[in-house]
Parts: sequence; C-alpha cells; structure tokens
Amino acid sequence: MSLRLTALGLDVGGANLKAAAALVEGGELKAVKVRSRYFPIWKAGKEKLGSELKSLVAEVCPRGFDVAALAMTAELSDVYWCKSEGVKHIIASARQAIGEFLVANVHGSFYTPEEAEEKPLEVAAANWPASAWLVGRKLPNALLIDVGSTTTDIIPVEGGKAATLGKTDPERLAAGELVFTGALRTSVGAVAKWVPVKGRMTRTSPEYFAITADVHLILGHITPSQYTCDTPDGRGKTRREALARLSRVPCADPETLEEWEIAELARFIYEKQLQQITEAIIQVSSRSRKLASRSTPAVTCGVGRRFLAEPAARRAGYQEVIPLERLYGMHAAEATPAYALALMAATIAQRPEHT
Amino acid sequence: MSLRLTALGLDVGGANLKAAAALVEGGELKAVKVRSRYFPIWKAGKEKLGSELKSLVAEVCPRGFDVAALAMTAELSDVYWCKSEGVKHIIASARQAIGEFLVANVHGSFYTPEEAEEKPLEVAAANWPASAWLVGRKLPNALLIDVGSTTTDIIPVEGGKAATLGKTDPERLAAGELVFTGALRTSVGAVAKWVPVKGRMTRTSPEYFAITADVHLILGHITPSQYTCDTPDGRGKTRREALARLSRVPCADPETLEEWEIAELARFIYEKQLQQITEAIIQVSSRSRKLASRSTPAVTCGVGRRFLAEPAARRAGYQEVIPLERLYGMHAAEATPAYALALMAATIAQRPEHT
Repeated sequence: MSLRLTALGLDVGGANLKAAAALVEGGELKAVKVRSRYFPIWKAGKEKLGSELKSLVAEVCPRGFDVAALAMTAELSDVYWCKSEGVKHIIASARQAIGEFLVANVHGSFYTPEEAEEKPLEVAAANWPASAWLVGRKLPNALLIDVGSTTTDIIPVEGGKAATLGKTDPERLAAGELVFTGALRTSVGAVAKWVPVKGRMTRTSPEYFAITADVHLILGHITPSQYTCDTPDGRGKTRREALARLSRVPCADPETLEEWEIAELARFIYEKQLQQITEAIIQVSSRSRKLASRSTPAVTCGVGRRFLAEPAARRAGYQEVIPLERLYGMHAAEATPAYALALMAATIAQRPEHT
Repeated sequence: MSLRLTALGLDVGGANLKAAAALVEGGELKAVKVRSRYFPIWKAGKEKLGSELKSLVAEVCPRGFDVAALAMTAELSDVYWCKSEGVKHIIASARQAIGEFLVANVHGSFYTPEEAEEKPLEVAAANWPASAWLVGRKLPNALLIDVGSTTTDIIPVEGGKAATLGKTDPERLAAGELVFTGALRTSVGAVAKWVPVKGRMTRTSPEYFAITADVHLILGHITPSQYTCDTPDGRGKTRREALARLSRVPCADPETLEEWEIAELARFIYEKQLQQITEAIIQVSSRSRKLASRSTPAVTCGVGRRFLAEPAARRAGYQEVIPLERLYGMHAAEATPAYALALMAATIAQRPEHT
C-alpha cells in the first residue's frame, strides 16, 4: 500500500475548535499540521460555527482532504437546550463547512453523520476515545491524563483502547474519569471555597473574577500568548492584570493586597487543582489491580500536562510519566483528540475495504 | 565557664511522655540520652502520671540532674475537666516525681511551678516554643514543621524564636499553626470522609477502626516497632492486621477487599494527610513576605518528618528542606521538644546569675 492521503481531525469543543491535518503515505505519517482557535460558542454564537469550522479547515488543509473525522464536546454548551439538539446542530454546521466526515462515538469507533443523528448521546463528548486509541498504538496499557483548558480526562488504556467505566460525561464524572478543572478557563471561585489571606482562611466569592489562566500566568506556568481565552474582566494578559483579577477572589483589590500576597493565593489555588486531579487519579486507579500496582505508565497531554497532569500523576504514585510529545511530538500533545482523530481516520481509510 | 551539668527536659504529652537528658560542659553539649514512653493518660489513669515520670527520669538520668524543664500538652486530655485542672495536676505529679523544675510557657521562657499554677493557660500546650528556640539557635529564620504521632506544629521562626500568630491551641488551630493530624494516632475516619473503593467514592465510618499508623505501616513508612501506640482493635502490628483494620473504614473487611484494594485506600489517606498539612503550611506562609518568598528553609522533625513534613513542605513550595537530625542528630529529631527543653534549661542554668 503506497496510498497517499490527507486525513483531517476536528475536535469541536465548547470553547476551542481544534483541527489536525495528517499526511499519510503507505501507512506512515509524513507530516502534520495543527491549528487551534478560541471559539466560545455561547458568546460567539452557534450560527457562526459552520463558517468558523470552514476557515479553520482551510488553514490546515488548503488543498482539501481525503477523509475527515469529527468529535464534539460543544453539545454540552447551554446555547443548546439539550445535547441531542447540540449534536444535530454541530453535525449540520460541519456538513455545511466541510461536506463528508465520520463522527467519533463513545465506543471508540465512528458513525456516519446520519447514524450520529440517530444516536446523538453516543457521539456527545466522545473525543477522549480517540486520544486513548492514539496512546494505545504505542502503549497497550497506560493511564492517560489529558489536562485541557477546561477539563481533565483520566482514561485507563487497556489492550490498546479506552477502558473507562463511564461512557457519557455524567458517568465519567461519577467514575473520576472526568474532572471539571482545567489549565485556563476554570473559575477560581470554583476551585476553592476558602483561600489563605494574610494568614487567615477566607471565603471566596463565586463571581467570575479570575480564572486558572491568571493563576498559571502568575506562577509562570504559561506565557501571555498561551493565555488563549478571554480574560474575565476584559482587560489584558499581563502579570499585573492577572494579579488584579486574582485579588478580587477574596473580595480584595490590587491596592489592598501586595503582589506576594496575591501570588500566595495563586499557589494555593494551584495546590487545590493538583489535589482534585490527584484524588481522581487514585479513584480511577482503585478499581484495577494493574493500575493500583502502578506498573503501567501515566501518559500526559493537553495544555496543563507539565504543571498539572505530571505532578498529579507523581502524587498519585505513578513512577513512569511520559509526556505525549515524547511519543508523537508537540502537535499531538497540545491538540490530542484532533491529532488522534486524523490518524484514526487515516487508518480506517487505508483498510483494504476502503482502498 | 567550665561548668558541667546535666539538664533534663520533659515533654508531658497526652499519649506520650518524652525525656531528654543533656550533659553540658562549658556551654557545649557532650552527650544526650532520650527516652519516649507511650502513656495514654486517658487509659493508663492520671494517678499513675507521677510514678511513670519518675521511672522515665530514672532511665535518662540515673544519677540525677542539675536543672530540669518541663512542657506539657496532656492538660487537654478529657481526663481533666478543664486545662487549668490538668496543668495543676501535671505540675503536682512532676513535683512528686522529680522535685524542682521549670515550666515552659507560651512566651518562649520559663515559669516556676508556682507561677505556672497561677497562670495555667500560659503553660498549657507550650512545648512548641522550645522546639522553635532549638531551631533558632542554628537558623534565625525558618519554618519548623513538626509532625508527631498526633499533631502537626507549623511554627515560623524569626530572629531565632517562635513568631506564631497563636499562643494557645485554639489560636494556633485558627492560624494554621496546629493541625490535628499525625503520623500514628489519628483516626482514619477523621482524615477523610470519602475514600475510593473499587473505583467509587465511598463514605467512611467514623468508628475507631484504623489509625494513621496502619496507613503508614501498609505504605512502608514505618516498621511495626515504630508503631508505638495501641492498635484500635487490640490486635497485632503486622501488615496483615493493619490491612484488616483499614478495610473496615469503608465498612468492608479483609475477606471482601483484596490487599491491593486496601493499599489503595492507604495511598488515598496518605494523600489527604499531605493535603491538610500542605494547606496549613501555605496558610502560615501567606502572612509574611519572607515566608511567602520561600527564601527561608523549612526544618522538619517528629516521627512523620520524612513521609509527611518533608513532602508537604515541598508541595507548599519550600525548596530547602532540612531534617532536624542534620542540625542536631536523631535524638533531637524524634523528641524535639524534650531535647530542646533540656538544652534551653542548660543554657539558662549557665547564665552568670545562676552560676
């Protein structure tokens, strides 16, 4: 087989759209191009989704593609009344934008768009099986920890594919396989109900004053250019502005708290995020002898892989922690589901029945 | 000054009695002897305190002592109606056992027994200022973290002495300077309200089924001989028996949970203890620019110094972590207040007005 094809992977999230184009020749990956675009669907408007996808795909595949696969999580956005409405709208928008494609399902395979419309809850929030498949191609057994901007996925990979207890988001939340904490967009008031201020534990305001991107900018975990979402107050992405935002969480301000006092808040919020992820990793590990033995490696990906996924995996007792870029390069680590979808689609397209 | 003297330090805790005898010559420490005895005053009976102290002191100072200093925390035990009753009883018992001595107060100095009886709340729970003084002799600025069998003290040392916000136990609890979690005696049900069992977060029983000594024995942090307190079920201190105790916390038993499943519980309880100590360290650090900068070292002591104090200090951002044995040897690290009291008493005795 010396088939040469371009495969497109699309990850339609509620806050970010990600696309990966993979050039595959004779079953080998020759080149890959990845693009990510901040697209908060509840603000930008769902009617713009189609045109946004179209322009994103034109960036990664200016000369078109041979096969495309799409996974979605944006259907959870409250711009849709319910998930099935979201699934149908996302499929319709993608159809308008790119024509033909496959839709990832929670079983780790694909549906046609028509099948997906019939079984919308089986394609809702189904980007993680592709990531698990990607890891499983190189490591049949592993624990995948993907810390994105908004959420953390903790996915046991067994025999080369996802071995989750949960399939849907609610099931995965219950199983510890999905944690709603992320490296950028999580509201700080949602991370901790109490924070230390001048030596006293102090309640926090749940107002949308600061997000974890502020915390990680202050701590030097991300640069302003990696702050790839809106700021809560509409101001800029300098350290000074992030400090001002964070100071408001215990209802102070940048005049009444000093920089080091606000930095201590950041440290505490970071600690709480690590605690939440660590506990979920132990919960997931507690159900399998192999995971509990910690004899399998943890694989980390997503924008928070270095400062959230890796330390949490270590806390939970994983000795071997492999960043996904060591297996597949940087593109794969930062946009894992999209990258995985492109490769998965290429693999399916190259099966004899397709050639 | 070539004065040669034997100084005795006594730390009268509610669960453990500790004594240190220091031979000091010309201001220099020549030899030290430390003994610890498990004496749960609420079980053993407060009327036995005097004879127990007498025999303990005979062990460390068979040929008597020149000066003695005593600190207490046992007055909090509910065998006493209130702290002042406890203070008076402890002083009376010590008087009967050893004669003359000084009583440590929360100001970092000593009272005579008569003064202490007049101001009982100023000598209640006053063993930590001596520990801070000990650290301060070598490091004028540091954060002392003492993880004992029952409690954790987090004491900022500034200018060579304790710089706590709190003086009494309730004040120190509020300030994060005292955390009621320890390496041996803490009830597991008090550490976590939820634990992971077979992948599901499960409520815990608050019955006195297992203690942190079981957790740390299972995890290999302590040996059976370091399990220096009673077991909750009266059974032995083997790993097998510790696993059985821990299995009961989520109301299971050693037949219905496998060893690896119980070990996972242990890992989770350990994680929760680290979280509690780490949060308190950040709280204490949040009130001072110097601590917040993490430019001062953390000094660790107590039976949990290696597996609780040190990792918690690292999580809280302390780069330099110094185990107390590196400053003063093993005896000092394992019975810090008693050791410190002996040296503090010797120092005072050697001042010109005393010689």
